Amino acid sequence: MLMTTREKNGPGYCLVIHGGVGTILQENMSAEKEKAYELSLEAALKAGEEILERKGSALQAVEAALRVMEDSPLFNAGKGSVFTHDGTIEMDASIMDGRTGAAGAVAAVSGIKNPISLALKVLQHSDHVMLMGKGAEQFARMHGCVFETEAYFHTDARYEQLQMAQQQDKVVLDHSGANTVMAGNVENGGRKLGTIGAVARDAAGNLAAATSTGGMTNKRFGRIGDTPLIGAGTYASNQNCAVSCTGHGEYFIKNVVAYDVAALMAYKGWSLQKAADYVINKKLKAQQAEGGLIAIDRWGNYIFTFNTEGMYRGVVEQGKAIETRIYQ
Amino acid sequence: MLMTTREKNGPGYCLVIHGGVGTILQENMSAEKEKAYELSLEAALKAGEEILERKGSALQAVEAALRVMEDSPLFNAGKGSVFTHDGTIEMDASIMDGRTGAAGAVAAVSGIKNPISLALKVLQHSDHVMLMGKGAEQFARMHGCVFETEAYFHTDARYEQLQMAQQQDKVVLDHSGANTVMAGNVENGGRKLGTIGAVARDAAGNLAAATSTGGMTNKRFGRIGDTPLIGAGTYASNQNCAVSCTGHGEYFIKNVVAYDVAALMAYKGWSLQKAADYVINKKLKAQQAEGGLIAIDRWGNYIFTFNTEGMYRGVVEQGKAIETRIYQ
Repeated sequence: MLMTTREKNGPGYCLVIHGGVGTILQENMSAEKEKAYELSLEAALKAGEEILERKGSALQAVEAALRVMEDSPLFNAGKGSVFTHDGTIEMDASIMDGRTGAAGAVAAVSGIKNPISLALKVLQHSDHVMLMGKGAEQFARMHGCVFETEAYFHTDARYEQLQMAQQQDKVVLDHSGANTVMAGNVENGGRKLGTIGAVARDAAGNLAAATSTGGMTNKRFGRIGDTPLIGAGTYASNQNCAVSCTGHGEYFIKNVVAYDVAALMAYKGWSLQKAADYVINKKLKAQQAEGGLIAIDRWGNYIFTFNTEGMYRGVVEQGKAIETRIYQ
Repeated sequence: MLMTTREKNGPGYCLVIHGGVGTILQENMSAEKEKAYELSLEAALKAGEEILERKGSALQAVEAALRVMEDSPLFNAGKGSVFTHDGTIEMDASIMDGRTGAAGAVAAVSGIKNPISLALKVLQHSDHVMLMGKGAEQFARMHGCVFETEAYFHTDARYEQLQMAQQQDKVVLDHSGANTVMAGNVENGGRKLGTIGAVARDAAGNLAAATSTGGMTNKRFGRIGDTPLIGAGTYASNQNCAVSCTGHGEYFIKNVVAYDVAALMAYKGWSLQKAADYVINKKLKAQQAEGGLIAIDRWGNYIFTFNTEGMYRGVVEQGKAIETRIYQ
């Protein structure tokens, strides 16, 4: 899944997804679980490819892929979202259209089955870019978004994570601990940084990016991470690239990571690979910040870049078979 | 208030503030009102300079300056905040330390007398960068922030603006209308884009930036603008510059304006003036996006850049008298 550098158009459409990064080690993963992740990633790629095949837009494709992952309990987004300190579910999502520069984002929304679809509705039907909380839920109702019950979002695995985190009085990034404050060995001894994302280039050459998350286990005080922030967790411009990030959100905010990759391409003329390597493996690593990103450039070059042991990820290119991977 | 370009250290500390931009025309402004704005800007600069004089940090200085403006009913932040659609006051603020890269931000907080001080407490005492709503208010209580009553935040001028906006069914950016959707002639026929901000360079050469706002009159759905978003409304790095923005927030988010100025300096080697001109007068203007920014670079060069008729603004440099200005 490594690309050679193209300097002209690639073979057509391409869709790239991730399901979070972390210390995802094969020795801690059962064959069944591995298979379940693979199947979920494949299903998400298929849903997006279906749209791209019939000349749908990159924007529609990234939404479709993330909807599938939001509906799976395996990923920290939608149904599989982690619990806050108060035992509630608060989700964030954002989406950006590289063709027009339009963007939509929602923060701290509850009960919405597919936050990424709400973010898309904000992009399409609101003069605003970012809506939050009860107000965003009111907007969702007005625009026909599907709501689900508390029971729908309750998964036993996530509830156990909350209880473990509260016993340790820790905030946990999904199934994670990015530094001492957030230390905690959860889910098979592996630390994982939740968040799901997708980037795509459609047959017309347009780019889009989308990201969705349930945030951090045991999070308090209305914490917002990088996922709903345009420029930090998500960015797309047909001029250079589309980016979706996952990792220790606070560092991604302070380093404006998604836009930084685009800026390095635009202002220094760097390749996507070089720009992403610099941001993830130099800048963030120097700050002991764990995470990664997926991105695609205007020519169809795509990358998976992360400074952790693993990343749930996959790609489908026009005329090629779906590929998925978990470990380094 | 135009600077020559320095390529080595300036004469010491420097503090720059703004109180929003818009169609602020002298013919619509009474002499009394003009004087009131001047005095408020001077008081803010004095409060910040007092800190810089006794070797306080740029971070403390920008907070001190914005506290004074938040306490004034003249600016759309703190006491002078505009009303939401539901007649409530919801404020946003963010602050960033160019020395450490640390940042704090709060979104949609109510009842907090000085949101900028809450943002600073998030920077200092939280592992998170961004907190919102009730959770942020809970954090504020735990850290001894001063709360005020609804009556404190109620100003008749803002309430009239809300009623006017609701009659027209418009969303108004402070006292403003940045495009057709937000059209509306408020406050003496002048359109103004609220938000207050400060950037500073202290005697030790450290930079900081801070921004605070009451948002848009008649805003709905938990709208969040660029003010609490690191990279969009606020950014600071000792490597290049500190920036605080004001204007039509949605465009500032999509264009990641504050960080874009820093990126142009870092990656293209442009001067602060050239970078800010490009972003405000080329990029944003091409999108019909109204607004501006204040910024200061590592050498102490400072700028006021806006594509509107006026900007409430002021500056104080070590060893020089305070200057304030309103029109172009």
